[in-house]
Amino acid sequence: MSFIKLTPEPLTAIAFEKFGDVIEVTGKPVMINEGTTERYHRLGDVGVGEGLGIMNIFRAQPRVLPMMITMMERHPLGSQAFLPCNEKPYLVLVCEGESKPDASTLKLFLAQGQGVNYQANCWHHPLLALDDVSDFWVVDRAGPGLNLEEMDFDTSLSIEVSL
Amino acid sequence: MSFIKLTPEPLTAIAFEKFGDVIEVTGKPVMINEGTTERYHRLGDVGVGEGLGIMNIFRAQPRVLPMMITMMERHPLGSQAFLPCNEKPYLVLVCEGESKPDASTLKLFLAQGQGVNYQANCWHHPLLALDDVSDFWVVDRAGPGLNLEEMDFDTSLSIEVSL
Repeated sequence: MSFIKLTPEPLTAIAFEKFGDVIEVTGKPVMINEGTTERYHRLGDVGVGEGLGIMNIFRAQPRVLPMMITMMERHPLGSQAFLPCNEKPYLVLVCEGESKPDASTLKLFLAQGQGVNYQANCWHHPLLALDDVSDFWVVDRAGPGLNLEEMDFDTSLSIEVSL
Repeated sequence: MSFIKLTPEPLTAIAFEKFGDVIEVTGKPVMINEGTTERYHRLGDVGVGEGLGIMNIFRAQPRVLPMMITMMERHPLGSQAFLPCNEKPYLVLVCEGESKPDASTLKLFLAQGQGVNYQANCWHHPLLALDDVSDFWVVDRAGPGLNLEEMDFDTSLSIEVSL
């Protein structure tokens, strides 16, 4: 039996670049709407191949920490963005891995006021809301093909997430 | 000189259906993530033709009401969604019109905790934040072609928006 204990680091574009985009106010905006609005342009792309980009709302129950992590999932055919409807903090758990998630590469991030856009095939854990029921605008893909892979970690591995 | 005075009505899917989608928690969700998340599926589509869906942040200055409305804009080549980053209220001003906005069809809505997805060619006013600087996740289109038309109303027309 081996143990991995994960505590979050701050979510930054550089730390997250292998996994996708951090969607946050950054860089120099373009002024639009007669100077009343700053446009922070193209912070992430909707990558859906031959599919269609769709917008959804996900309403996530809060998690009780510490919690054990047993699986990860990914979407081979498209990106998936989580854009919080409010400023509540949440956790983002990702890892690398070709055919299955590689637990030795797990990274846990604390996000607040930031969105994330997982690139296609990025292994990630389902929503990890904290404190309260949390709503997210989700931009992902509809279309033909199987766009969900779920994979359990080896049961000899114990992975704990805490703040 | 003619005058139009507009005060907002609540934003509902039915009242908005000529203009696009209201993106809000509605209908029966699908339970996902082992029962921890409700997915409200496909509340709006990213319609970008041959273009690419992109995600941006718009940071809008609050407006002082009552204000005069002098112009509208539209995007012929793609949809544009405004998904608020928080629960602050904002106004949505739209109208019909083929080659130019038809002021007699103006509709003003008060949105809170709701997103809107303007369909391509929907005449709308630039962001009308209230009270405070307000951030929005914006899902729209990048790609070749001119995707912005702005049109002034006739100066003989006076259009006032108030709460």
